[in-house]
Order: sequence, then structure tokens, then C-alpha cells
Amino acid sequence: MTTQQQAVTATRDYRAANAPAIVRSLAELVALPNVSRDLAAVRRNATALRDAFAGRGVTLDTVEIDGAAPVLTGRIPAPRSDRRIGIYVHYDGQPADPTQWRSHPFEPTLYTAEAELGGRPRPLPADDEEVDPEWRLYARAVADDKAPLVALLAALDALQLAGIEPTREVVLLFEGEEEIGSPHLSAYLRQLRDRLEAEAWLICDGPVHQTRRPQVIFGVRGLTGLELTVYGPLHELHSGHYGNWAPNPAQQLARLLASMKDDDGTVLVEGFYDSTVAADQTEHAALEQLPPVDEDLREALGLAATEAGNALLAERLLLPSLNVRGLAAAGVGGATRNVIPATARASIDIRLAAGNHPQAMLELVEDHIRRQGFLVIADDPDVETRRAHPRIVKITREAGYPAVRTPVDVPIAADVLGAAEAAAGEAVISLPTLGGSVPLHSFSEVLGVPLLVVPMANHDNNQHAANENLRLANLWYGIDLMAALLTMP
Amino acid sequence: MTTQQQAVTATRDYRAANAPAIVRSLAELVALPNVSRDLAAVRRNATALRDAFAGRGVTLDTVEIDGAAPVLTGRIPAPRSDRRIGIYVHYDGQPADPTQWRSHPFEPTLYTAEAELGGRPRPLPADDEEVDPEWRLYARAVADDKAPLVALLAALDALQLAGIEPTREVVLLFEGEEEIGSPHLSAYLRQLRDRLEAEAWLICDGPVHQTRRPQVIFGVRGLTGLELTVYGPLHELHSGHYGNWAPNPAQQLARLLASMKDDDGTVLVEGFYDSTVAADQTEHAALEQLPPVDEDLREALGLAATEAGNALLAERLLLPSLNVRGLAAAGVGGATRNVIPATARASIDIRLAAGNHPQAMLELVEDHIRRQGFLVIADDPDVETRRAHPRIVKITREAGYPAVRTPVDVPIAADVLGAAEAAAGEAVISLPTLGGSVPLHSFSEVLGVPLLVVPMANHDNNQHAANENLRLANLWYGIDLMAALLTMP
Repeated sequence: MTTQQQAVTATRDYRAANAPAIVRSLAELVALPNVSRDLAAVRRNATALRDAFAGRGVTLDTVEIDGAAPVLTGRIPAPRSDRRIGIYVHYDGQPADPTQWRSHPFEPTLYTAEAELGGRPRPLPADDEEVDPEWRLYARAVADDKAPLVALLAALDALQLAGIEPTREVVLLFEGEEEIGSPHLSAYLRQLRDRLEAEAWLICDGPVHQTRRPQVIFGVRGLTGLELTVYGPLHELHSGHYGNWAPNPAQQLARLLASMKDDDGTVLVEGFYDSTVAADQTEHAALEQLPPVDEDLREALGLAATEAGNALLAERLLLPSLNVRGLAAAGVGGATRNVIPATARASIDIRLAAGNHPQAMLELVEDHIRRQGFLVIADDPDVETRRAHPRIVKITREAGYPAVRTPVDVPIAADVLGAAEAAAGEAVISLPTLGGSVPLHSFSEVLGVPLLVVPMANHDNNQHAANENLRLANLWYGIDLMAALLTMP
Repeated sequence: MTTQQQAVTATRDYRAANAPAIVRSLAELVALPNVSRDLAAVRRNATALRDAFAGRGVTLDTVEIDGAAPVLTGRIPAPRSDRRIGIYVHYDGQPADPTQWRSHPFEPTLYTAEAELGGRPRPLPADDEEVDPEWRLYARAVADDKAPLVALLAALDALQLAGIEPTREVVLLFEGEEEIGSPHLSAYLRQLRDRLEAEAWLICDGPVHQTRRPQVIFGVRGLTGLELTVYGPLHELHSGHYGNWAPNPAQQLARLLASMKDDDGTVLVEGFYDSTVAADQTEHAALEQLPPVDEDLREALGLAATEAGNALLAERLLLPSLNVRGLAAAGVGGATRNVIPATARASIDIRLAAGNHPQAMLELVEDHIRRQGFLVIADDPDVETRRAHPRIVKITREAGYPAVRTPVDVPIAADVLGAAEAAAGEAVISLPTLGGSVPLHSFSEVLGVPLLVVPMANHDNNQHAANENLRLANLWYGIDLMAALLTMP
């Protein structure tokens, strides 16, 4: 039996004896609000993590620059090895609107199954209760991205209890600003470069495959975004006295957004796809081996196939996307008022594929908007500007970051795929790129080593949305995975 | 000197002596929240009004059906006259979002001028202070439509003090549901028909002309509306994993709205203008005598003239309008999340001109939406419906009500125009129709007498929007107007 096999056996034994306690420790961690922009809340998470790892003999240093959210860094020693890998997790989370959730996003609630498919809330398990792996814990950040933290803590407990030493030293980096685009990660990496040397960095984030099979991912998309504010009259106007006479910014915005994409999701912005690096031979081969998921996904998500046919999801991920992530103008529903809105806003995110430069992509979108007859400005217009231009849009740009793609045949790949396979007990999928965005470009640029994404969360975790949840079977996989990574041959 | 001239002199004397107290009594009334859907709040307004009129010897009966907001009705006697007119005012108000207001909508705040043009907040005047007629009181419902109530109370005070008797009996009707489309007004009118007999009804609502000249209005537009909910995936999706693959309901909604109107405000819905009654000769003559306002208005509202040229506001009012009054999907600004929204909503109001039937207009819009490839439903779709249809929109219809137009040469017109002229001291504008909507059709249908709208509020009162305000000069005009109407020859 290899050390890795012993380690996975140890985590399974440990879990069999301690499953309720592990679930409760996860619930305790996700009960801490961690919305990225709430710095005080994020800091409370950092303190809790430092305490939790200290309890396993792992000292985490809190490093903080510029009044930004701190990063935590530390090492798990491997006395008999001179090899070292890095493990990255982020501990901040997306905002959450409690009115959209079944239970409060920061009051973790255990369901007997996926809530939308009939799962019922139930108490957290007591020590002597059996824990069903199909149970799900609902809370913001439970999947994205606190699960790997709890999995690593449980794996350390299990290995220590079984007297198994890690076979590679692990350097840890936990970030607190990932969900707002990691504005300080580059600076942190440069500052800590000497302490972060490793032969590869493993990014623990994102979901496993939609078939529930584990996967290792060799790239991530980049991300940028912009917010559009279209201006109508100086203030809201009575829609009876001025409707169809004063221009309506919501209507102008609708026409502008309509010009950007067709109904099949193809972006109509000139040049939008031009900078994208096409997939190479090994990536094409990996794509061809992916299990087909599109039809099942459409069924699960309540989506219809379009008459024109639909592009395959895996192919879409190799292209940049443009997504209207939010709209707002005056009120709807109970807040409806009979007005011409004074402004209308749309927020757009742009996922970047390999080759796309964030600011260059925003330039293309701005050029497109100008071609629709809009004056593009960066600040609120003064009244003279308004009087001079019938169509005005303010564009607020995000900084953004580019995509990263690691060759699927990089040497460390075999070790990591082997660890995932040892943890899962089944063949692991190699995915050329994740659909999601993680700021790995900083790792590539600053640390210059291969990056692999090693996810554990269920694909249907409602990441970034209301009712985010973690399926316990995926937490179990995550614990085994962490143990297997700590004991790679 | 006619009784009417004596009456106007009496209100001016009274105002000179009591202006601060009148302003404070207005502030007291608008400090009472009165959003139509808050029935308890609306009832508190009814009680306050009943008490205020009782203090002037006018008994108001509170009539309430169906648990709806009560109407108040009563009479101002005219012992020497057998003629009777009706005066209608509504005492409910639009919703108000305090975050959009300079001061809280229900904490009335006096400004030294229009706040956007440099007016500064100042305390309510003490008894010995001079009151500047350019001061404005900011509060929800101060202009729409509580000003006529306070004006009538002050006029009664002035006439009683001067010992002047009304020359026509006045029957009063105060409604508490106008801002939600007067769902029970017809029922109330039918129930109270015998008590509401009058030779004409005067609707005290709406603004004076944009030139600040007084006007009498011979019609109002009707109103209907609908809310569109476009459906995407069953729940919000991570925009990285599914962007440009899963359909985006915000994008679909944008394309749908874009199909409904062109950039010049012309509605592209087939048949939308067909049922409209064209203006007759007397109405054309009245239109031609209107002072030109479009250019000044554009300047005041910060609007540009479009290259294609702009239709005249007065002409637009004789046509139905379609206005996007609200948009919402997921979050913008600080609430932005990187998701594909699960739904996107647009709220639309449709102002109706003479001849347009509310439900028939909604049918035209629904037909248009179907022609854009949408399945139109009335309730949330089940998952099977979602799987079967790539574009789904739920339409929630409002009941709505039609427009009314009274001939501009109806006999009572001369009396009412004369009263407005006596109050204003200048020529009065005859406007064939108000841009706004008031449910006068019920009066026409149930009571069968001529209707005239007699407004007093400033045109720039921000009716229905944030920072609603009343210019005190317009309240002064309103008091004189009420006195002149009570003493028509």
C-alpha cells in the first residue's frame, strides 16, 4: 500500500468516525459573513482560519498591505521530502441578498437533498447521527470557496491521527479579495515571492464536472467588466406629461444591449473574437474525451434547445463571453412608479479566453457603443453635455485580468491527476479550461510555475447566486483529495 | 365689485396675514405618509382630512367598501343658490424611495428655491416671518395631490372670516386610491350617485402650464400598464461556467424592448395608433394658441434635440404612449454579481388617448411580443414549459381605464375659465388634454356630466418622482382659485 493509499484510507476512517463534527465545523466557518467589500468581516474570517490551522500545528502569517484584505500564508512541513507544491484557496465570498435565499446566506442550513428537488431543512447532525452524503449545506461561500479550507483541516486531522507524514512540503496562500478581482494579489505575490516558491501551484476553487466526476483543470478564463449608465432627463419625469417626448434611458439602454449580442449568444461587437488563441492538438483531444453534458444540463436548468441549435458548452468556454449580469432603472413590481427614469444601468461581465487582453476587450465594446451613436464618458455628464448629446453613456471599467492556460501535458499533471483519481476512485477528467475566472495570471507572471485547478464543489452549487450550497459527498471527496495531494508519490 | 372679486380679495388679505400658518398646515398634512398600497397610512390621512374640514363646519362622511381605501364626501352649502358643482381631489400618493430624495419624502422640507437650481433648506416660517412665494416645500404628495386640499381649507377660512357665502353649492369627493388606478372609484360613484349630482365635476389635480400660466384642461389620458418577466435558467447561474451558453433573460428582454419603439419615441407595435380619435377643429384651434414650450423644457431637463427633429409635446399628448418605467435583473453597482440572471423584469405604462381601449391596447402589445417569438403566459412557468420554449415572458396586466375628452366649448367652461382668470389675474390656457391620467372615465360613465381639470401645482413639481415639491406661489394661486370657484357668478 502506498503512502497515498494509506492517507486516503485514513481520511475515510476519520470521516466515518467524525462526519457530524466535520459538517458542524464547516457550518461554523460559513456562518462568518465574508463579502469581499466588508473588510472587517473578511478580517474576522482570516482570524478564524489562523486559529483553526494553529490548532493543527500550522502557523499562518497574516500579511496585509495598503489596508487591503490580508493574505494568509504558511507551510505544512514534509520532513522527508525536498519537493514543494503550493495550495491556493480564497476565503472571501460574493455578496448575497437574503430576500432571494431560502434560508439566510449566513445562517448555514442543512437540507436533506437539493432544496429545489424536494430537499428539506434539518438540524446539523449530532455526534451519533449518520450523515447522508447527499445532504447539502446551504450558505454563502460554502462551495466558493470555503470547502477546500475545511477539507484541508480535516485531512490534516486525519493524517495526524494516523501518524502519516506529508510526502511533499505544501506552501499555503489564502486570499481575501478574489471575488472583487484580486486587486492586490500581484503585489502580495511579489512581496512574498521567496516564501511562495513551489514546483507548481494548485488552485482549489471551482466545481467538479457536471457528471459529478472529478476533474483537473488546466486553465481559467480571465475577467473584466463594465457598468453602463445611460442618461435621460435630469430627474425622473411624469410619464404622462412627458412620455414618448422626453427620451427614455431604459429604452435607449435596451436598444444598446440588443445591438451587442444575437439570440444565440454570439457577440456582435466587432473584433470580439479576434484575439482568442485557438485550442491546440492536445486540448482538442481532451475536449473530445469530455462526457456530453449539454442536454442533461438544459433539462436540469429548465432551458429549451433553440431552433438554430446550440453551441456546445465546452466549446463556448474557449471563447470570450459577454454577459448582462444586471439591469436597473426606476422601479418594478411593488416599487413601480409612472415615470420616465432619469438613468438606466446595465452591468456587464466579460469572460476572457487565452489571448484576450482585458482593457483591449473593453475598448472594442466602447468602440461598438460609439458606433451606436452614443457619447461615451467616464464621469456623470454636466447639464451642457446633456443638452448637446441625445445619447450619453457613462462607462465604468473594471481593471480585470487575463486568462491562463497550462499545457495539459505538463509534468506535474500526472501526479495531480493521480491524486484526484486516488481520492475519487474513478477516472478523472482533464479540462483545458474552467469557465470561471480566477486571477491565476498573477501566479504565472510573478511565480512562473505551472498552475492547475483542482476543484471539489458540486457543479450545481449555485456559485455566486442565491442558495449556494455544498453537497456533502463533494466535501468527502475534497478531504480525500487533500490527503492524496499531501502524499503524492 | 362682484362676489368673486370680493372673495379673491378676501383670500389675498387672509394669506397676507396667515401665510406662515398656511405653509405649516400644508407641511403637517404631507408629513403623513400616504402611499396608496399602505392602507393603514391612507386611512390616517382620511381621518386628518375629516377633522380639518370639520373644523371649518364641513362634515365629511367616510365611505368604505370592500376594505378599499375610503372616499370622503360632503357638501359646502350655498344657501342662496340652487346650482351645484363637484370638486374631486385624491389624497393618496405615489411610493417614494428615500435614498433618492434630498430630504425624506415624509419629512417636509422648505427650500428657498428649486433645490436643483441652488435652493437651500430652511426652517418652516414662524408667524412673524415674511414668506417668499418662490420658496418650495419638498415632500411626497405635496403637489400630487394634497395642495388642492390645503388650498380649499384656506379658502374656506378666508371666506368665513370675510363673511362671504359661496354662490354655488359644492359637493366634495376625496379619493384614496388614485395612484394605483382607482380600482374602486366606479363602485363608489355608483353607490354615491345620488349624493354626487352636480352640473359639472372639477378635477383638482395636475400641473399648470410649463410657462407657469394657469390652465384649464378638457381631457385626461387613460392609463394601463403591464409588467414583463422574462425567464432564463431556473436559478441564477455563474456567468463564467454558463455565460453565452445559457440564454440570458436580461439580453432577451433588451431585444424585446428594443423592438417596441424607435429612438424618436414612435411606438412600433402594430396598430398602436389606429384607434386614436383625431383632434377636432376647436381642439386644433386651442393647440395652436398654446405658448411654445418644447425648447425651454429641453433646456431645463438637460435634453438634447435629436438630429431627426422632435415632435411637439402638445401633439404627443393626443397620442398614446408606451414608456419603460422600470427595469430590474440581478444586481448593478455595489450589488453586482457575476451571474446570468434567472429573470429580467420590465414595467411599462401605456398612456391612452381618446378612443384607445385599455385591454385592447394590451392585446396589441401582447401580439407584438408573440411575433418576436415569445411564449406569453400569465403565471410563472413550470419546468416543462421552460424546457419546451426558448423565449418565455410572463405578462402581468393592469386593469387600466380609458381617456376622457370634454368639448372645449361646453357651457360650464366659461365660468371655470373666468374663475381661474380672476384668481390668476392673467389669461388662462385651454388645454384639450392633460398628459397625465386621472380616472375621469368613471365620472363620465356614472355621473354623465362634463368634467374639467383645474390644476394648481407648478409644472416642475417632480410629480411621481423623487423630490416632489410645491412652489408656494402655486399654493397661493390655488387658494385664490378655490375661492373664485366657490363664488362663480
